[in-house]
Amino acid sequence: MRHAIGVDLGGTKTAAGLVSEHGDVVFSETIPTLSREGGEAILNATAEFVLRLRRRAASAGLGVTGIGVGSAGVIDAARGTVVSATEAIRGWAGTDVASGLARRTGLRTAVVNDVHAHALGEAWRGAAAPTSSSLLIAFGTGVGGSFVVNGRPLLGHRWVGGHVGHLASPFARDADGSPLPCVCGAAGHVEAIASGPALHAEYLRRGGDPAVADARGVFALAQGAGGSAGDSTARAAVSVAAQAAGQAAGGLANALDPEAMVISGGLADAGPLWWDAMEAAFRAELMPPLASMPLLRASLGGAAALIGAARLVLTPEILTPAKGLL
Amino acid sequence: MRHAIGVDLGGTKTAAGLVSEHGDVVFSETIPTLSREGGEAILNATAEFVLRLRRRAASAGLGVTGIGVGSAGVIDAARGTVVSATEAIRGWAGTDVASGLARRTGLRTAVVNDVHAHALGEAWRGAAAPTSSSLLIAFGTGVGGSFVVNGRPLLGHRWVGGHVGHLASPFARDADGSPLPCVCGAAGHVEAIASGPALHAEYLRRGGDPAVADARGVFALAQGAGGSAGDSTARAAVSVAAQAAGQAAGGLANALDPEAMVISGGLADAGPLWWDAMEAAFRAELMPPLASMPLLRASLGGAAALIGAARLVLTPEILTPAKGLL
Repeated sequence: MRHAIGVDLGGTKTAAGLVSEHGDVVFSETIPTLSREGGEAILNATAEFVLRLRRRAASAGLGVTGIGVGSAGVIDAARGTVVSATEAIRGWAGTDVASGLARRTGLRTAVVNDVHAHALGEAWRGAAAPTSSSLLIAFGTGVGGSFVVNGRPLLGHRWVGGHVGHLASPFARDADGSPLPCVCGAAGHVEAIASGPALHAEYLRRGGDPAVADARGVFALAQGAGGSAGDSTARAAVSVAAQAAGQAAGGLANALDPEAMVISGGLADAGPLWWDAMEAAFRAELMPPLASMPLLRASLGGAAALIGAARLVLTPEILTPAKGLL
Repeated sequence: MRHAIGVDLGGTKTAAGLVSEHGDVVFSETIPTLSREGGEAILNATAEFVLRLRRRAASAGLGVTGIGVGSAGVIDAARGTVVSATEAIRGWAGTDVASGLARRTGLRTAVVNDVHAHALGEAWRGAAAPTSSSLLIAFGTGVGGSFVVNGRPLLGHRWVGGHVGHLASPFARDADGSPLPCVCGAAGHVEAIASGPALHAEYLRRGGDPAVADARGVFALAQGAGGSAGDSTARAAVSVAAQAAGQAAGGLANALDPEAMVISGGLADAGPLWWDAMEAAFRAELMPPLASMPLLRASLGGAAALIGAARLVLTPEILTPAKGLL
């Protein structure tokens, strides 16, 4: 059986594992990402990490076919390079990841954006397996997604495909009705109300306690304790963020008609208060022929992106034909 | 050179033409659609129409490879059947178009929804030629679209893909802020503010003259005459409908990153008052890496759908692999 090393390279940590051609994770490990030290330092550390995993595989009698990487940033999957990235990984933009890792390790390397890797993993072995098409949307620090059709993610002409957080949302308004600023530079987008930081900001805008530091804190308050109903301001913030999330997911479901919808990210794992409001808004948005569309919670957890990334080299036709338009 | 007959079957008329393998229309004709007489009557009339065109082709020394049909309704392109259709064509739902026409004519027949045919035509020989991906959105009686990737339309798992009018729009609100009802049964959707009838309804909601019968009338008032500025209520209705259209197109561009965006339909042809407001809203919505995305007006006019439909049989791999998930 063939195996590949799947790498999930994020702003704070890099997870990698040995993945079989059936999508089983034989073992995995994690290192910190050297996110302040530039592209070359990250490539050096990642290559060393991969070679250690390859030795571990060899000691178990297993060979390694290649490296698949899911990376933060906008990734040119044809060249294996980082088109752009936020300051979360300094100096990452412009890095030639595929050649850099291949040269350092001698292993064929393929790269996509981490959300696409995540969706590929869920479509292969997770919540969306087996489906012929699925749309994954992750609600966490940001809002991102990936539409996987016949096993292939739609990467987009400029490798930007999947930025589903940058649609207009009627919920992304302040109390005066002005559109909330979005991290992309525009305003009124889904991400400006439905991400974790946006949920926290909504709580504060509604007069919440400034000592509550983040979305996790808002959820803790909203859920209450010992049978109490929870803080009403916190519940309202969770509700509006969840409704914005579900409404956007439903609208995209109407436009794309995936076999199944998969929801992931920190907010998807935050419990029924968010999920139930999100699902109700999703169902309210669907056209009648889509009424029974499955709405699934991602099931692979932190392993999804490295499993999906490994598939890039285990099933390389995922990245053909040219231009990543799959 | 091979030729096919492309058919564009709509609620009021059916256009068909002989199309070469290069996408040139050799000739075309139009008949009324028997939209009150049921599926069998429509199939009989369409088959007779096609056979007449085939005789005309034969008299010019040209053979016919097959029939491609773009039809109103939700179309199962694998079976060539009508999954559902509105009352605009009574008795059309359930009709087996592909077998029905093939049996009557002896010609191999393929069928897709008319908006997908339209987009295929524009991607092949129209505004989006040559591109590796394009998203067409038609703003007319309704709002529909089609995302064509590598020459293939994304038809959706339940053949519903392309219903881009059923996303939430912040503009689809009445004066009290309540979401406007949408023809799909939900509320607050793009189609509820950005279609032609919705534009007319917006004009009336804003206190416009009840004697103005439709969107065309609103545009005539809005444009004014002889250098006058035009009626301000009409201009406001056009502006809000156009902004809703452009904002939705921009959000979908962020999510899908097509090489080019194509806008068609009656509103796209209504002049700069609508187009300029639509384009400004579109550009305001785009993420920075998409800033230069071409926004194109459809160029094939009424021939687009029959050209695209003909391609279904001239390039039959458009409808593979299975399930229409392309």
